[in-house]
Amino acid sequence: MCPSTPQQATFAEIKRFVEPNSIAIVGATRQTGAGSFNIVERLLSHGYSGTIYPVNPAAKEILGVPTYARIGDIGATPDMAIIPVWERSDVPRLVRECVEAGVKAIIVVTQGFADGDAEGKALQDDVLRVAREGGARVLGPNSLGVANAFIGLTTSFLPHKMDRVPVGVICQSGVFFLNLRTFTALGKAIDIGNGGDIHFVEALTYFESDPDTRIILMHIEGLPQGRRFMEVALRTSLRKPIVALKVARNSEAARAVQSHTGSLSGSDEIVRVALKRCGVLLVSDIAEMEDLAKALLRLPPMSGRRVGIISVSGGAGVMVLDACQDHGLSPARFSAETVSHLQEIHPGWMKAANPVDMWPLAAFSGRGVSATAMTGLKALLGDPGVDGVVLALATPFYEDILTVAAAVPDLMRTYGKPICWWTIAGSDDEKEAAIEDRGAVVFESADRAAKVLARLADREHFCRENSPGSG
Amino acid sequence: MCPSTPQQATFAEIKRFVEPNSIAIVGATRQTGAGSFNIVERLLSHGYSGTIYPVNPAAKEILGVPTYARIGDIGATPDMAIIPVWERSDVPRLVRECVEAGVKAIIVVTQGFADGDAEGKALQDDVLRVAREGGARVLGPNSLGVANAFIGLTTSFLPHKMDRVPVGVICQSGVFFLNLRTFTALGKAIDIGNGGDIHFVEALTYFESDPDTRIILMHIEGLPQGRRFMEVALRTSLRKPIVALKVARNSEAARAVQSHTGSLSGSDEIVRVALKRCGVLLVSDIAEMEDLAKALLRLPPMSGRRVGIISVSGGAGVMVLDACQDHGLSPARFSAETVSHLQEIHPGWMKAANPVDMWPLAAFSGRGVSATAMTGLKALLGDPGVDGVVLALATPFYEDILTVAAAVPDLMRTYGKPICWWTIAGSDDEKEAAIEDRGAVVFESADRAAKVLARLADREHFCRENSPGSG
Repeated sequence: MCPSTPQQATFAEIKRFVEPNSIAIVGATRQTGAGSFNIVERLLSHGYSGTIYPVNPAAKEILGVPTYARIGDIGATPDMAIIPVWERSDVPRLVRECVEAGVKAIIVVTQGFADGDAEGKALQDDVLRVAREGGARVLGPNSLGVANAFIGLTTSFLPHKMDRVPVGVICQSGVFFLNLRTFTALGKAIDIGNGGDIHFVEALTYFESDPDTRIILMHIEGLPQGRRFMEVALRTSLRKPIVALKVARNSEAARAVQSHTGSLSGSDEIVRVALKRCGVLLVSDIAEMEDLAKALLRLPPMSGRRVGIISVSGGAGVMVLDACQDHGLSPARFSAETVSHLQEIHPGWMKAANPVDMWPLAAFSGRGVSATAMTGLKALLGDPGVDGVVLALATPFYEDILTVAAAVPDLMRTYGKPICWWTIAGSDDEKEAAIEDRGAVVFESADRAAKVLARLADREHFCRENSPGSG
Repeated sequence: MCPSTPQQATFAEIKRFVEPNSIAIVGATRQTGAGSFNIVERLLSHGYSGTIYPVNPAAKEILGVPTYARIGDIGATPDMAIIPVWERSDVPRLVRECVEAGVKAIIVVTQGFADGDAEGKALQDDVLRVAREGGARVLGPNSLGVANAFIGLTTSFLPHKMDRVPVGVICQSGVFFLNLRTFTALGKAIDIGNGGDIHFVEALTYFESDPDTRIILMHIEGLPQGRRFMEVALRTSLRKPIVALKVARNSEAARAVQSHTGSLSGSDEIVRVALKRCGVLLVSDIAEMEDLAKALLRLPPMSGRRVGIISVSGGAGVMVLDACQDHGLSPARFSAETVSHLQEIHPGWMKAANPVDMWPLAAFSGRGVSATAMTGLKALLGDPGVDGVVLALATPFYEDILTVAAAVPDLMRTYGKPICWWTIAGSDDEKEAAIEDRGAVVFESADRAAKVLARLADREHFCRENSPGSG
């Protein structure tokens, strides 16, 4: 069989990579500490629950774990082997040894294959052929491998955080193991690297059926298995939201992708249209991916595109309106009942409208920021013309803010509508963490809050249009 | 004279607001601490170097500062008076008392004037007429007033940071006193509020000639004095960069602006074109304003649009290429000399190209991250085809990163080209602050780094095209 048309890996075959009971590290380093890139150390630090077999002919033990000269010396067959050696020419031989030891799942970290020159491409073909002949599957080459917070597993040589969150990551770059900025959205991860054997389809098939995964994040440089992928993606995204960052949007980037993972990125436009048709939620950068993952985990659905806005600053309210329009959302028209209810707490000279500019209500009426925000939130959430709310509340009113933040989860549960909090200005990681600890969900800008609401509305629309009962 | 066509305020008149030797707070509160909105407390906490006269008929002293029942009782004429009372109907009387006491600069914080109803509009006209008859200028109504870190002055009732940075802020919302997210870009500030008397032209005229100000940040809801403003803006931006966040981009937002500051926002498109023609650098949100202010303060100019990219991750390099294209920048073509120099540190299977994917160079060659980054930076900065560099270096290599960060200022000085640092993923405020403390300039995403370089290139282009010697 031609190495470029492998049999699609099954769920069980991918499961062996993500949930192995034992791992051999073929070419484990004895160096430890900062800058050592020691996978054994990483596994121990995360408390991997399976058995670790470091393979290194020059060592007796690594960090107290007994080593083996060759994988064949272990005397048991590890579920998975990982090959992180530096010399690409060593890899075919090591893969052969893994296969001969009966290993069915092999991760190749080494670079310089299809991501390199013609010789590298030929070496990659060798590796895949040897594996296939031995009935083994390969993740990579040029892959950080896998992570699984549920069993303390990471094959990454770089330190990273993970957490038992129901978020599965599929990527073509180790960057996506390194965590999003303020949020550990990594429960499980599969880096397909060059995607020589296991590609997006297989990784997605795993997360489709994995009970630990509720949300799937993808980083896509190229999508060669278009049709097969679309079938799985459409089926999956009806059950679990898929968020994708499609990169290589232009020709220069497409050329760079070829030397990064050897992928052919294809027409960006066609890939985007195809992904959208499958209900995949497209984001434009890492920050937006972080925002949307957080939103999908913590916010109720957004059933339409009508946004109610409460802002402690009239100026910030204007910015939220700009952002809503930029992302295809519309400002909600409040019902007569809502307007008359809101009017009661407005000064006489001020008409209740969307956005609710709450500063005159809060400060000049003496009601205070938290009571005014709560009254406003309830009025807006209770209005049938409002699908979701942006709350623009700045951190100088810190005590008030923590009170409101603590009430947000109950409000969202009661009304079944999302509240996106924008701290406007003068904020920092610490204050935002305090707000989020109380259960509210914070976004760094009006633009980012509006983008999230738009994607949540896209998802609801897709699910309605494509659910079995519809059409 | 009709209140809607006042004489333009002079530099000396605006200077009296921003650099007063004495201030009366007409309607000073006795409450102190969190939630009290006490301007006397704010002034004391910033160590205001002038004299403070709280006016409150019910108090003998506020925080140890003697109070006066009426402004006329002071027995001296304060340079400036600020009126933060809650009842708009009290304001015309208080303004009259200020004028009778000889005060020539009056800030009205109170809301509910042109930002409110017809009665408010009439009240605003009263206020302005009384002031004009007494030869006084008015900032507001509906204004937080002014800030000046150089003399410890703020008239804001909300706490905010300021710093002796050469950055002047002109805004229509107090939000811009509350600091940008990670960076105190407020040396001086003028909130024009409703802009009843003093408007953008006057505020800009002050900063044009102010020796403490090198960079001007503007928040613009509406620009009614278009022609006069453009004259001053064109003249000013040849000497000092002006960064503007033009909001109210759509009809809903324009309507909201009318009830926020009573401004007519006019055609967004026309205002944008006019601003660009004057060399004003337009940004789309607060985060971009923060980025650009930082860049203008700390980075050398960007003389063209060709970007060299060094990335510790091939995947991140692709994202930088995407971002460059999105913002009208092009990836630099390295000279033959640069390519051959870079090729020496590449593995044999890897062609030197832009972006420089430095992980295989750093890790697999054993040179390490910091030495590889330094070699790469020097090669790119020394290439005449490179106008600026994006360095994508993630914080897991923390020690290496601090070494590189400390070298960045010297590199930028030596080569006269900007380096924008993107920390990719897994970063936080603390790590980024450590990098910036050493002199490098950090941006939160590839998109934000590329936007900054594009605006820096725009500025150089504008200055070249419009300098007295050109054309």
